[in-house]
Amino acid sequence: MGEEIRYKQVILSNYVKTSVKESDLSLRTSKIQLKIPCGCDGAVLVKNLYLSIDPFILALMKNQELDLPSFTLDSVSLVFLKVMRCTNLRLKINVFRVIILGMPGMTAYVGFFKFCSPKKGETVYVSAASGAVGQLVGQFAKIAGCYVVGSAGNKEKSAFALMKVDLLKNKFRFDEAFNYKEEQDYNAALKRYFPDGIDIYFDNVGGKMLEAVLNSMRLNGRVALCGMISQYNSLEQPEGVHNLINALVKRVRMEGFFTSDHYHLYPKFLEMVVPLIKEEKITYVEDIAEGIESAPGALFGLYSGRNVGKLLVVVARE
Amino acid sequence: MGEEIRYKQVILSNYVKTSVKESDLSLRTSKIQLKIPCGCDGAVLVKNLYLSIDPFILALMKNQELDLPSFTLDSVSLVFLKVMRCTNLRLKINVFRVIILGMPGMTAYVGFFKFCSPKKGETVYVSAASGAVGQLVGQFAKIAGCYVVGSAGNKEKSAFALMKVDLLKNKFRFDEAFNYKEEQDYNAALKRYFPDGIDIYFDNVGGKMLEAVLNSMRLNGRVALCGMISQYNSLEQPEGVHNLINALVKRVRMEGFFTSDHYHLYPKFLEMVVPLIKEEKITYVEDIAEGIESAPGALFGLYSGRNVGKLLVVVARE
Repeated sequence: MGEEIRYKQVILSNYVKTSVKESDLSLRTSKIQLKIPCGCDGAVLVKNLYLSIDPFILALMKNQELDLPSFTLDSVSLVFLKVMRCTNLRLKINVFRVIILGMPGMTAYVGFFKFCSPKKGETVYVSAASGAVGQLVGQFAKIAGCYVVGSAGNKEKSAFALMKVDLLKNKFRFDEAFNYKEEQDYNAALKRYFPDGIDIYFDNVGGKMLEAVLNSMRLNGRVALCGMISQYNSLEQPEGVHNLINALVKRVRMEGFFTSDHYHLYPKFLEMVVPLIKEEKITYVEDIAEGIESAPGALFGLYSGRNVGKLLVVVARE
Repeated sequence: MGEEIRYKQVILSNYVKTSVKESDLSLRTSKIQLKIPCGCDGAVLVKNLYLSIDPFILALMKNQELDLPSFTLDSVSLVFLKVMRCTNLRLKINVFRVIILGMPGMTAYVGFFKFCSPKKGETVYVSAASGAVGQLVGQFAKIAGCYVVGSAGNKEKSAFALMKVDLLKNKFRFDEAFNYKEEQDYNAALKRYFPDGIDIYFDNVGGKMLEAVLNSMRLNGRVALCGMISQYNSLEQPEGVHNLINALVKRVRMEGFFTSDHYHLYPKFLEMVVPLIKEEKITYVEDIAEGIESAPGALFGLYSGRNVGKLLVVVARE
């Protein structure tokens, strides 16, 4: 029969309209029997230890026409990174490695090396640079011999934003970093950090920042469209990008990508990153919230920039 | 000494603000001596027989910050395709070949084959399809085994627009064609012609049409940014593209290009296109205005869609 246990789920109660609200999510307690259904040889019983809270989740919580597998109402929503405890296999769990060797690491690798085609000496700008992917992109850019500037921030001007900017420069070794919330004029900020223009933009935010970057882009620049967090929340209508003429005149390549399309590159990625980890040439900061009850709050915080690095919710320690 | 002759120039009198106006251009008659300066061995004296009137000219007539060699006030503006009569060389002039084997042909070739990476069976949409480049892109797409739809039109609903659409289907062998001016809703129009979506968009217009295309784009689609004629004229502010999130979600590659960067591909282009010309598998329509006095009017007409095919002004017959 298997042991019957009670467990908690985060449920999507309403499709999100513009900004995600507390009432859009609810907690539900259910019961489940811990057994593998008959006839499922080789099946694995898993326990979620961590939830991964990622910017793109909001897109799945809206009832909109995108070619994405959206969440459905009244069903489990916040289950992503399934770190498994198995009944019939032995797997060692290491959060650090799950992140760097997992989705965020691969996203930074594929996005930067495949889609940005970096060359030594080029200038690189990373938005949302203290986030899960951004902090690794910056470190990869330094390893590739590029000049790299990151922006970070949060809704309020705060010591917390300062800390993020400090992390970028002093922990992740970006050449420069700035709090975008303190910039009245993104064009001016980018001109300050890139007087000769930007070769590569690793875009995690979209919208007005993307527009400003296009003004500062150099000939034959590349833009990897990795995320558009500025456009997921709080906007009745997405912001328009009015200066795509720059992409034409400057022969810029803009390309969207999903990491999941590129897992054939995983062995090459490991070949590069494993020695870097061993030699401690790459570092990582994660932001961990405790307990599944904290998951909705962690999600709200993500869109206000209240996290530093990869945002995780610990559901259980083991 | 050389013969002294009188000749006419089209002069840029004022930088264009939004739309080009008659008063922005003027005609001036000057004198010149027909001789090659001393010490210029190997120099060639040329006579302009044709002017090429192209959509991007307007961008050069505005006093704006783009990385382009803009025109300067009170100097010659409308001299482009210099078809040469030489004093010390023999060159045969053939307008048909100058166009197909020249800039429009190379633009269509480079833009379509290099930047759109077409595969047999893919769906292709070409805007401004009856223009200098568009009509060739459509024919190349058919040769590549694609399904191709073109749009054309002009400001007024007219028999002339009908004729353009008819040309696309019956002369250039597009699978379908439509007058975009008769479409209230570009999204609906594209859904009608591409029920399963668009793999390749050869963009000559930018703006709202580009926005609609992004909604209809298929996974791993490609957009070659060749021109943005809808954005050059008549707009106080360029239109915003509000749905770049589609480029991310659908992993679309958008890339601007200038043909002049790719002339190393010219031999490959000739290898493909010369047999097609010989076998009459490729055709062309040009729109010729007579006399340099007609050049400003021809330029105005270009932005109202009053041309079909490559727009030329004959300055002299030989």
